[in-house]
Amino acid sequence: MFKSALIQFAPILGDIETNILHIAKLLENVADAELVVLPELASTGYNFRDREMAVRLAENPAGSRYVEMLVSQAAKYGQYIITGFNEQAEDKIYNSSLLIGPSGPVGVYRKMHLFMNEKKYFTPGDGKLCVYDTGFCKLGMQICFDYLFPEPWRILAQKDAEVICHPSNLLTQNAVKALPGIALMNKVFILTANRIGTEAELTFNGGSMLINPSGDFLQKADADNEYILFQDIDPQLSRDKMITPLNHVFDDRRPEQYTADNC
Amino acid sequence: MFKSALIQFAPILGDIETNILHIAKLLENVADAELVVLPELASTGYNFRDREMAVRLAENPAGSRYVEMLVSQAAKYGQYIITGFNEQAEDKIYNSSLLIGPSGPVGVYRKMHLFMNEKKYFTPGDGKLCVYDTGFCKLGMQICFDYLFPEPWRILAQKDAEVICHPSNLLTQNAVKALPGIALMNKVFILTANRIGTEAELTFNGGSMLINPSGDFLQKADADNEYILFQDIDPQLSRDKMITPLNHVFDDRRPEQYTADNC
Repeated sequence: MFKSALIQFAPILGDIETNILHIAKLLENVADAELVVLPELASTGYNFRDREMAVRLAENPAGSRYVEMLVSQAAKYGQYIITGFNEQAEDKIYNSSLLIGPSGPVGVYRKMHLFMNEKKYFTPGDGKLCVYDTGFCKLGMQICFDYLFPEPWRILAQKDAEVICHPSNLLTQNAVKALPGIALMNKVFILTANRIGTEAELTFNGGSMLINPSGDFLQKADADNEYILFQDIDPQLSRDKMITPLNHVFDDRRPEQYTADNC
Repeated sequence: MFKSALIQFAPILGDIETNILHIAKLLENVADAELVVLPELASTGYNFRDREMAVRLAENPAGSRYVEMLVSQAAKYGQYIITGFNEQAEDKIYNSSLLIGPSGPVGVYRKMHLFMNEKKYFTPGDGKLCVYDTGFCKLGMQICFDYLFPEPWRILAQKDAEVICHPSNLLTQNAVKALPGIALMNKVFILTANRIGTEAELTFNGGSMLINPSGDFLQKADADNEYILFQDIDPQLSRDKMITPLNHVFDDRRPEQYTADNC
């Protein structure tokens, strides 16, 4: 059993310094959580006016003041922190999720499925469907619109991820429709940290949520307020892949039949 | 636009003749529907006491009184009827779904993913993920517990199925958690005809449902009553696979990244 915390708040578009201060203050409230999840693009905001703005706000984790602050918090409290961030790597930028542990950065996931104008700014990620063992759980990462594509979640679960962390900037209720099934089919926990607030024509709808391996909502935040969801999680519940005494969610698959020419 | 009808009722275990009469009477109420969906194992009931009973009740469609009645109804009303049935083929039995059109039997789907004791009675299906063009829509079939495995639904949708018919004998709320996401991810209609009633330790929970390509419930029956759900369906809504002006549910997939060694 470990304690998780999902942080829902409104970053200010383009104001990294203010966002760092805001997030640092929020993190003071989650000192006793082993795992903290922040939203997508938490340090920069989301709705860039153009590609130039997106590029200007991108950061290489190695030299980022934001990452430095998170590394310091994670070390101080001996915890793991996951955040969405605008990643600069060589001449590209990615919509990424960074996992930081007590000893520093652990891994990056680059969003595979870009939503709307993200396609104009970011390079689609090469994925890296890695599962990280924190000691208290095995976790994977997906970002926001990835909820529409069940395949990577399946792969992470088959690689023994018990908890899939899902930094988001959601605008619709579609993730609420898609994720309970994904949790159930794979018997994993899903931790979706969504943002709130408005940037130009976009209003983010909060509703940060924790879903258990039975596909049930453990908690769901409201749409408008800054919020921290605390939840104790027993990863053991994900390890048992029997959904009935005679049915196993992975062993019952029929991959040899899953082909388009099966007709 | 076409009219569909989902029939929810309680077959009597082992009494094929009574079930035929009951179903024939129900079908008189759906004469104006172009597509009718009946539950899984509609003519035999579900909870066989042993394999011997399951085998004794199995029928080869070619010599089946039940299929003969359905063929006659479908011809009379110029409609398509889908029913679950206990299929005998050579020395095996399958938990199958049969599609009958105005001119007779069109195709069979054999359940790929067997639930609980079904494993003791039936041979797991070789699938046949076929899409049938009725003229008013393109349709595929899945059966009950198949809801837990998103892969075949994906394949049917990628083969242009607009409507996936889903004869069921559901016992839990898991399909309600899983199917909205499957409908949304593939932008297809899902028509789940479930049964009601109790057989020994099993109580079937009705709740027959129609889900649209946005993952929303159009209708959902109650848990206890015989019920016919009528629903007009516009298959055009499934043909448009754009989920935003810049996102296509299939073209945005990244199959080259969907591999376990992507880490």
